Amino acid sequence: MNGAESLVRSLLASDVDVCFTNPGTSEMHFVAALDHVPGMRSILALFEGVATGAADGYWRMARKPASTLLHLGPGLANGLSNLHNAKKAGSGVVNIVGEHASTHIALDAPLTADIEGIARPVSQWVQTSLSTADVGADAARAVQAARTAPGQVATLILPGDTAWTEGGAVAGPLAPPAPEAVAGDLLDRAAATLAQEGALLLLGGGALTAENLELAGRIATATGCALMGEWASARTERGAGRVNIPRVPYPIDQALQALAPYDKIVLMGAREPVGFFAYPGKPARLTRPDVSFVPLASADMDLSAALEALAQATGAAAEVPELTPAGLPDLPALSPLTPDSMAPVIARAICEGAIVVDETVTSGRSLGPVTAGAPPHSWLQNCGGSIGYGMAVSIGAAVACPDRKVLALISDGSGMYMPQALWTMAREGLDITVLIFANRAYQILRGELTNVGVQNPGPRAIDMLSLDRPALNWAEMARGMGVEASRVEDTAQLDQALAAAMATPGPVLIEALM
Amino acid sequence: MNGAESLVRSLLASDVDVCFTNPGTSEMHFVAALDHVPGMRSILALFEGVATGAADGYWRMARKPASTLLHLGPGLANGLSNLHNAKKAGSGVVNIVGEHASTHIALDAPLTADIEGIARPVSQWVQTSLSTADVGADAARAVQAARTAPGQVATLILPGDTAWTEGGAVAGPLAPPAPEAVAGDLLDRAAATLAQEGALLLLGGGALTAENLELAGRIATATGCALMGEWASARTERGAGRVNIPRVPYPIDQALQALAPYDKIVLMGAREPVGFFAYPGKPARLTRPDVSFVPLASADMDLSAALEALAQATGAAAEVPELTPAGLPDLPALSPLTPDSMAPVIARAICEGAIVVDETVTSGRSLGPVTAGAPPHSWLQNCGGSIGYGMAVSIGAAVACPDRKVLALISDGSGMYMPQALWTMAREGLDITVLIFANRAYQILRGELTNVGVQNPGPRAIDMLSLDRPALNWAEMARGMGVEASRVEDTAQLDQALAAAMATPGPVLIEALM
Repeated sequence: MNGAESLVRSLLASDVDVCFTNPGTSEMHFVAALDHVPGMRSILALFEGVATGAADGYWRMARKPASTLLHLGPGLANGLSNLHNAKKAGSGVVNIVGEHASTHIALDAPLTADIEGIARPVSQWVQTSLSTADVGADAARAVQAARTAPGQVATLILPGDTAWTEGGAVAGPLAPPAPEAVAGDLLDRAAATLAQEGALLLLGGGALTAENLELAGRIATATGCALMGEWASARTERGAGRVNIPRVPYPIDQALQALAPYDKIVLMGAREPVGFFAYPGKPARLTRPDVSFVPLASADMDLSAALEALAQATGAAAEVPELTPAGLPDLPALSPLTPDSMAPVIARAICEGAIVVDETVTSGRSLGPVTAGAPPHSWLQNCGGSIGYGMAVSIGAAVACPDRKVLALISDGSGMYMPQALWTMAREGLDITVLIFANRAYQILRGELTNVGVQNPGPRAIDMLSLDRPALNWAEMARGMGVEASRVEDTAQLDQALAAAMATPGPVLIEALM
Repeated sequence: MNGAESLVRSLLASDVDVCFTNPGTSEMHFVAALDHVPGMRSILALFEGVATGAADGYWRMARKPASTLLHLGPGLANGLSNLHNAKKAGSGVVNIVGEHASTHIALDAPLTADIEGIARPVSQWVQTSLSTADVGADAARAVQAARTAPGQVATLILPGDTAWTEGGAVAGPLAPPAPEAVAGDLLDRAAATLAQEGALLLLGGGALTAENLELAGRIATATGCALMGEWASARTERGAGRVNIPRVPYPIDQALQALAPYDKIVLMGAREPVGFFAYPGKPARLTRPDVSFVPLASADMDLSAALEALAQATGAAAEVPELTPAGLPDLPALSPLTPDSMAPVIARAICEGAIVVDETVTSGRSLGPVTAGAPPHSWLQNCGGSIGYGMAVSIGAAVACPDRKVLALISDGSGMYMPQALWTMAREGLDITVLIFANRAYQILRGELTNVGVQNPGPRAIDMLSLDRPALNWAEMARGMGVEASRVEDTAQLDQALAAAMATPGPVLIEALM
């Protein structure tokens, strides 16, 4: 068996059976191995950021890693920003990068680059296989690293000769290290803290599953503490019958206001809240100057166990959490499309089990409360801030959950970073409804211009934030990539188009002209 | 004056007056400064790889650097692969990346990343400004680094507070270091070598200007040596009345064959030829085992001076070079579109002064000889091997040379890495004709599968190299981004569409269905 085959068999042995790929010459043996070895689903992307973003989305929904297969340093570079997002989301990714044959690297051929150097800023684990015999074991270690809580980006670099040479050996799975348990003294301190006035339990990462939120809800009932989620989370289970919590707002003044009531914050998979950006004359930390934190459990710990323990310590085990009642907003009167007029229409389209991928940036700020009573669904957000994650993550979510509908809410500016994702959706027949918020601007930056202190921006500055010259036609672009598409201009058309798309399997794009 | 304004004024003082940008919050002050300071042309890209590729193309044609303006680590990451290509092409780029305010970096906000770490693999020069007072001087040093022969990627990282704080100072231009001169003993050895049997003068980089090629032609007449160019060059001046030279072929067997006659090679801005990739059982070096090299001048030296000196040393100054006669191939009989049937049609479309950007991969292999007698034109190639460079480089070339027509020859697989470039072409009304070679496959990889020794690839492997499910519709995609487009299916339609596009100013896309 050659190294390439040992790679595929070792990945399968470690329960990694999906590969999002954009391969090149140095990866041809791995591509060939897919024919010899049954069981690996390979999904082609036309741009590497689509592959890495898909692996991120896959982890969030499957709770196990997918692999990527990328071509040398530049292929990795094209996938880098969505690996940044995956790393910040705590997603496990087995990121496989082909390298020149080991004898070829010193010759500095055109595609030669410092692959480890490119990988390191976005990877918690980086390894180059030194020989064919190592490939299987290195793959098992990469999966182990990817599975290390909360989930890590593990980059495995495979020189071409390690793939084509005979002598590969299949390696069995390796268990990831057990997460650290919460410290007993911190637990007591947290329990005591939450029973006091002005206490907040701030949740992040794995604390936002349905079960864990229910535990948090019991704790809130028992102690009277408030609950809040970080500004973004990789996956939140929400909707009717679940414990819904507000999140720290993105705009800095709103965030300061939302956190102002709390002088005691227990961190449960969350970090101390800081501003997304620094702004002149505004604080970078979003909490009160006199706040005290109890860092009970970090995101890499077992948050289910931590919440169970905290429920015990607060006497909350038998309490009744406050669950969100089912309830949908009324369809608004016929009106043009604005963030506010669209929100109730979207809320009504969310079906049971829907996976909502949220890359709405400014356009989705009113979605939170309006969608709270929709049927139970998962809500995925961008934790790394690099826009262009949404359609790629949707692919991974749809592959992980073929029986669930994905609703991708995408701002037009964001979508244009990775439009190639649409082709992969069509190729794989993925059950994704893409809703484009076509406001034809980097709308958020118009606000940021003022926020950072720019007075009276001139026409040339405004022009750099405008996407209306020429106006994009998303429906045409989508059709060009094989995805059925339509354009809507008012709430009635949006409602009709969304209802049809959500009722029909397969990818559809709706361009909402705002 | 704040730091942002000092940046813009210092860039202008160093004769950098074009900025290809995709900005974010941390760059808002620089965007605002564009309104206060006249003279900087800012061009918006919807994806950072378009901005960095455009800066590469701008350098190649303007012979001076443009700047970029990118948003934090992930924005840089999205521009990385085209910076790799720029670095390998010897293009000078002033690559400006915004960073969080210096007080904010330690807080590890979502977009925080190791920007210097991401930049280093693709940059010859990396610097983070430490204070507002430094920004102007750092900018001048970045331009100096970018202008250092043959041209370098200089990454300047600017924390947000250095932009918004008062105390900026404008810095004047700094001269780049003078390139090293050729050594006298090497010159004598080269002159003696070229007069012998089996001698080749291998040219690269700045040796491929019209004047330098004419000098090389004189030397060939005087000494009887052969001339050849590296497999790719950033810019070659060619066409009727010029010295046209063959280049080292990409396919390894053809390259070995082409170089087999030569046991003495003088390097003039070129490196020892090596394979693009390693292949099992094939040599990595493309030259004879008994070859001897005379490394007369590397790409970072003054190649005009080196060729002048070599012409003197070989007594070639008064010789007559062999110039290519004007001559176009006949229009082929009506036939379906193949690489061979398209080549003469394309050759006939090349007008005087055209800038041909070649990202044809397999589809353009017959273009070389057929286009040799076309009116004088520039030919730009990908020196870094990361596909997706062509449409972006075309933007920069068109901005640098508004009076010349750009003809971008783009394989469909390659084009899909950076389709967003089309929008910027439309927005700026750039005079670019994009010809898409729609063979609906990663055709080159089908050959590479065999080359690397894969026997009988199965259907799943072949499927990973096929782009026909669904078929892309480039004309629709282009219209969706505001670019006029048509589809052609035979040589007559191609001829007609190319003639119309080349005669009309502004961007047009032609999709050639092969």
